Amino acid sequence: MSNTAVSIITIGDELLIGQTIDTNSAWIAQQLNALGMDVLRRVAVGDERAAMTNALDAELAVADVVIITGGLGPTSDDITKPLLLEYFGGAMRTDERVLQHVKDIFSRRNRPMLDVNLRQADVPDSCTVLFNSRGTAPGMWFERDGKVIVSLPGVPFEMMGIMLDEVLPRLRMRDRKGAIVHYTIVTAGEGESFVAERIADIEGSLPAHIKLAFLPALGMVKLRLTGKGADEDQLHKDILPYRDAIAERLQNIVVSLQDEPLAKALYDVFSARGITLALAESCTGGLIAHQLTQVPGASGYFMGGVVCYSNGAKTDLIGVDADTLATHGAVSEATAKEMATGVQQRLGATYALSATGLLGPASDGSAEPIGTVWMAVAGSGRVEARKFRFFYDRERNKEMAATMGMLLLFRFLKDENNI
Amino acid sequence: MSNTAVSIITIGDELLIGQTIDTNSAWIAQQLNALGMDVLRRVAVGDERAAMTNALDAELAVADVVIITGGLGPTSDDITKPLLLEYFGGAMRTDERVLQHVKDIFSRRNRPMLDVNLRQADVPDSCTVLFNSRGTAPGMWFERDGKVIVSLPGVPFEMMGIMLDEVLPRLRMRDRKGAIVHYTIVTAGEGESFVAERIADIEGSLPAHIKLAFLPALGMVKLRLTGKGADEDQLHKDILPYRDAIAERLQNIVVSLQDEPLAKALYDVFSARGITLALAESCTGGLIAHQLTQVPGASGYFMGGVVCYSNGAKTDLIGVDADTLATHGAVSEATAKEMATGVQQRLGATYALSATGLLGPASDGSAEPIGTVWMAVAGSGRVEARKFRFFYDRERNKEMAATMGMLLLFRFLKDENNI
Repeated sequence: MSNTAVSIITIGDELLIGQTIDTNSAWIAQQLNALGMDVLRRVAVGDERAAMTNALDAELAVADVVIITGGLGPTSDDITKPLLLEYFGGAMRTDERVLQHVKDIFSRRNRPMLDVNLRQADVPDSCTVLFNSRGTAPGMWFERDGKVIVSLPGVPFEMMGIMLDEVLPRLRMRDRKGAIVHYTIVTAGEGESFVAERIADIEGSLPAHIKLAFLPALGMVKLRLTGKGADEDQLHKDILPYRDAIAERLQNIVVSLQDEPLAKALYDVFSARGITLALAESCTGGLIAHQLTQVPGASGYFMGGVVCYSNGAKTDLIGVDADTLATHGAVSEATAKEMATGVQQRLGATYALSATGLLGPASDGSAEPIGTVWMAVAGSGRVEARKFRFFYDRERNKEMAATMGMLLLFRFLKDENNI
Repeated sequence: MSNTAVSIITIGDELLIGQTIDTNSAWIAQQLNALGMDVLRRVAVGDERAAMTNALDAELAVADVVIITGGLGPTSDDITKPLLLEYFGGAMRTDERVLQHVKDIFSRRNRPMLDVNLRQADVPDSCTVLFNSRGTAPGMWFERDGKVIVSLPGVPFEMMGIMLDEVLPRLRMRDRKGAIVHYTIVTAGEGESFVAERIADIEGSLPAHIKLAFLPALGMVKLRLTGKGADEDQLHKDILPYRDAIAERLQNIVVSLQDEPLAKALYDVFSARGITLALAESCTGGLIAHQLTQVPGASGYFMGGVVCYSNGAKTDLIGVDADTLATHGAVSEATAKEMATGVQQRLGATYALSATGLLGPASDGSAEPIGTVWMAVAGSGRVEARKFRFFYDRERNKEMAATMGMLLLFRFLKDENNI
């Protein structure tokens, strides 16, 4: 019994010239996957009628459900609605609920309203309107030959709202054919092939309905076990022993058994123990603080930090010794340690993490090569520093440094707290 | 005369279950576009032989060039190479240069090497090897019936290296059929439909070979003029008058005439004037600092900042008055202003920007509703604060706040410096 097959079509010239990165497809795929549906293909096409029609034809030939995003905005480069009208026939009608909603939005925000805005309430009479509580362009639900075609706006926040409120409940009612279960093991510090070799025997013993995938990303490797079958409870029972066997084998490099960012794993450890954190970031430029504060409730443990990009900021804000900077340089073990203990003390935090390095593209004339980063963690009476070297470009070095810094902190906490 | 048509196929189950966001396609599309090629379609398929073969068949039917990324890693879920061998025929051979390169990488990094790593040097003898200076998996170039098929690893950094070193130069030599020219105007503070209305007459007067697109994103709207034709110089001459007319009409909301982030526009203003900046971020949690420090050379003007997530950080690090916090609350005009002047003074910066607010999902019990953010800019003897209200989820509110903060600073600078 095969699962419902879905194709996602994203529309917009901006996707084809690379001006916009498509985040919608990944989010939609996650949601459908959780319902046990299989996304077969994702296709991006431009704002051109022929390309859109061809894509719709091709995807309807292979998929049970086609989800289209984009091309619904008020400006003249958005042509999805006329195309769908032609494709499914019928006439345009004005949806009164949507019209009132559009008027309300403009009057609430006190913005002038234009004809193009009012026309957002026009929909083909062959569709079911999917109300957009977060914006003006409604979604549309069409059915043909037992297949479903959904059209959604491309603005991620609005698309997500319509998916959650309107599309997913309808799809859930329509389809309960199969189940899919994923388990993820997040590891850090070892390369993909080395991790694979360590668990080759376990992978070899997996039954046919359970697949293992390796997803490497920035110093980390995620392992994903996926099982497909008729019965969800049975799938959990089938997969768990393999998940546990892998997690035990890889114990020393496992960060989390949830598919979650490192920042969330840190949040869990800090919150559970009532301990607090301060940061002193030089080369990472606020990225670690940004990642930590993406987790709701981070203010419960993260007291704050400094982005001490200049030497002045290091001395003035957290009391790094000017002599240390002069003698050892900004990118040094001594400076990293003083940054960590300085911000820890200044904010009265239980732990502190610091990062100072050179990310490129240009050297600042210091003795250390580009890509060198010193990081330090300060705990109760103990400071530990480590030197890293990254070999990529500026943005990637920065991301790597942020990940490695959080990992250093995570390991330090594990050691100190016997986790 | 039509441009070379390209399809991009990305391979990997992780794309279809939404565990990975596809950034490769956008980057590849940008590069090809700059060569005057048209990306017709982008297709993502899973790690399954039939799906990959079907995608290759379908894209070869419509495109002159097909670029495949992913599915080349050393683990067993990577199946692109065997498939290409079958598709194009021939036998596997070991490429000695790649083999030596793989061995060198492992010995340099002092990591144990496995059989699967050595097998990365095996390639179908029907392809031209595209050397991967940044990693172990080589790219492959196949030709059939005058069409080109390129297979690249999915790791972005490695894929980019092979594209720049090997693929783009080969494609450039093969094809000089047409030119494409883009101009971008970045605006902020007005909605897409309102911007469109203001320049409707200019848009209406565009000749057939010039298209205008509106790309809305987080409080900003990018306008992109695209011209296609035989002669690149002529295209520049054709488009520029329209670009200038639009920029003049929208003068009050134009941020940049380059397709660049706000952080880069700020970098340009600060660098050109030799002025400096400090930040005090509460609710934005380091995101503004992170965005500013994405720009190489940011250390030339950005002295640093504090992420004062707790009240303690606000008082201890930058001297916000405890009475101000008690009387007005952390999310208030008074606190925002003291944060800006406090960090400005502490770091001796010419300008400072601050942000303090509630981003959700939970309220902290303060009088202000979720989504309220106060921001302030301090200049020479002048402090200006503004209250914002965002209506989205935590992550989007944070991004909006960062964008609006940078915009507030940008406008303040324009006023003070007569830009």
